[in-house]
Amino acid sequence: MQIIITGGAGFLGQRLAKALLNSSLAFDELVLVDVLMPTSPGADSRVLCQQSDLSAEGAAQNLVTSRTGLLFHLAAVVSSHAEHDFDLGWNVNLDITRLLLEACRHQRPGIRFVFASSLAVYGGNLPALVTDSTAVTPRSSYGTQKAMCELMVNDYSRKGFVDGRVLRLPTICVRPGRPNQAASSFVSSIIREPINGELASCPVPPELALWLSSPAAIIENIIKGATLSGEDFGGWRTVNLPGIGVTVQQMLDSLERITSPETRARVQFRPDPAIDAIVSSWPGAIDNTRALQLGFRVDSHFDQFITQFISNNQA
Amino acid sequence: MQIIITGGAGFLGQRLAKALLNSSLAFDELVLVDVLMPTSPGADSRVLCQQSDLSAEGAAQNLVTSRTGLLFHLAAVVSSHAEHDFDLGWNVNLDITRLLLEACRHQRPGIRFVFASSLAVYGGNLPALVTDSTAVTPRSSYGTQKAMCELMVNDYSRKGFVDGRVLRLPTICVRPGRPNQAASSFVSSIIREPINGELASCPVPPELALWLSSPAAIIENIIKGATLSGEDFGGWRTVNLPGIGVTVQQMLDSLERITSPETRARVQFRPDPAIDAIVSSWPGAIDNTRALQLGFRVDSHFDQFITQFISNNQA
Ligand SMILES: NC(=O)c1ccc[n+]([C@@H]2O[C@H](COP(=O)([O-])OP(=O)(O)OC[C@H]3O[C@@H](n4cnc5c(N)ncnc54)[C@H](O)[C@@H]3O)[C@@H](O)[C@H]2O)c1
Ligand SMILES: NC(=O)c1ccc[n+]([C@@H]2O[C@H](COP(=O)([O-])OP(=O)(O)OC[C@H]3O[C@@H](n4cnc5c(N)ncnc54)[C@H](O)[C@@H]3O)[C@@H](O)[C@H]2O)c1
Repeated sequence: MQIIITGGAGFLGQRLAKALLNSSLAFDELVLVDVLMPTSPGADSRVLCQQSDLSAEGAAQNLVTSRTGLLFHLAAVVSSHAEHDFDLGWNVNLDITRLLLEACRHQRPGIRFVFASSLAVYGGNLPALVTDSTAVTPRSSYGTQKAMCELMVNDYSRKGFVDGRVLRLPTICVRPGRPNQAASSFVSSIIREPINGELASCPVPPELALWLSSPAAIIENIIKGATLSGEDFGGWRTVNLPGIGVTVQQMLDSLERITSPETRARVQFRPDPAIDAIVSSWPGAIDNTRALQLGFRVDSHFDQFITQFISNNQA
Repeated sequence: MQIIITGGAGFLGQRLAKALLNSSLAFDELVLVDVLMPTSPGADSRVLCQQSDLSAEGAAQNLVTSRTGLLFHLAAVVSSHAEHDFDLGWNVNLDITRLLLEACRHQRPGIRFVFASSLAVYGGNLPALVTDSTAVTPRSSYGTQKAMCELMVNDYSRKGFVDGRVLRLPTICVRPGRPNQAASSFVSSIIREPINGELASCPVPPELALWLSSPAAIIENIIKGATLSGEDFGGWRTVNLPGIGVTVQQMLDSLERITSPETRARVQFRPDPAIDAIVSSWPGAIDNTRALQLGFRVDSHFDQFITQFISNNQA
């Protein structure tokens, strides 16, 4: 069986590939495809790296073949980027998903199709606790595109064209590397940069509640999402992956506790209304019940997000 | 100012055109556009009828010009039709909406864009009373496409590319004419055909609750949706137009009361699981509070649906 990861050069794509190679899942080929040439996360002959703009004519169509058994669709343009480049956002976030679903429908109907959605589908006036039955009213083009894809994956699943699984990811913290064009980029910056001895600015007020997952939990949960049976999901294939609610203040308290007051002091508050508008429209708490029933796992405490980052950073 | 109605040859398009011509709304041109050549609903020099497949290259783009001030987007492929012809449904229901939004964005940003959505965006396990904050989990491709368009119109509105209004229509009863390819077609048939002396079959059980609006109320409400100010809608442009909840049994009781037992006896129950699956996934009751606050109007009793039909039928 062949597994495909779109966005295979990205943050999650690389980590997912590594985790799959180390997992007990049986497959004979793992294709990493991305508009940026992916590198193989390990010396494993099963890995095939492909550079391809999936919005290009025929690219998605040629990617899926009768050998494909599982597709993780992670390729995306992140939130602030999609907000600034409106056309690119629609093209990558909506059109590529549709092209891939069509490719599955015609080349290999019924394959497992794991779609990475986001809590950014929520927005506006939300209840204190968001649940699976809360309406999605996104306040960003990124959230809109993800919400539209969720609906599309569900309809293709209902029709039997794919065996879809829509996983709504919490905000991920701590992402290694450099800041990116996600509106939530600061969530990692305010932990990562101080630990690396750099200054960081926080564009939102300390009391803002965020809904977070660690990279390790996300990767485990994405694989879980692929290995559950379709029936486990019932009639609706969308699930909010579990997260924990933390305020910016609590994050900085953790940082100070685990590192030092000097490290904490490298974070300064510099309000940015554009970022604030997007991020504060996201839920601060989501009901984890269904996800936990399905067997997804949740992080325990924000302190461990920091220790996880520090130990990976040193590795 | 020019007004455009897409789906202008359709049931609602024709009635809306007639109502606009008789209204106090000021405009100098009313374009009816449809893949079937529309006829003018009155001898009025302001009416321009255009035959155009809006999915064709350039058609949507050329439709909207700097003179356009208001666009009613009603063109669609209805529920059972979109369920049977999957590609056509996506093409007409999703792609044309996007092409029209793009046309507005580029030719005449900020114009009023009224989109006819449907209660079919709801589906699955619904609460007894559906509200604006109930998640949409459609169980048909039609509902999926409408739900995706709703999100898109909201995002284009947030960006200021259009001044969008998304109106979720209840099931309309009594539609004159012949049965169509809507899954809800029987809802009109079981009243219309007996009154016209014909037999009708009902594919769902008598206890099924439907959420209905009369054609007259719908047309008034569509015009209301166009004349409200954008701010009235607040941050989210989607509204459930008001309806009344009636069971099939209550409809038939009304029919017998207003006509005769002989007329009522022309309806026979013939279960159709495919129709039942779609229609019974729709809500039987929706909270009208927000719609009524916005000034939309609601029908009073199902008896009047029948008398409205009979008097129009004789006119
Ligand atoms: N909570 C959240 O909001 C959240 C958090 C993390 C990730 N996600 C989702 O998870 C997925 C992976 O996220 P990530 O953090 O790894 O993002 P990332 O930006 O690191 O990776 C996305 C990859 O998609 C690739 N890509 C973009 N356009 C492409 C195209 N036209 N053709 C092929 N590839 C293209 C990029 O080059 C990039 O490598 C994304 O879909 C993202 O939206 C959501
Ligand atoms: N409760 C509901 O579900 C509900 C009820 C009624 C109407 N609606 C919506 O209201 C709108 C109007 O409904 P109606 O009852 O008048 O339907 P209708 O079928 O009578 O009219 C739709 C029109 O769209 C036209 N059309 C289809 N494809 C086209 C294309 N490619 N280019 C141009 N025109 C095209 C058709 O020819 C038709 O005349 C639709 O969007 C419908 O989905 C929803």
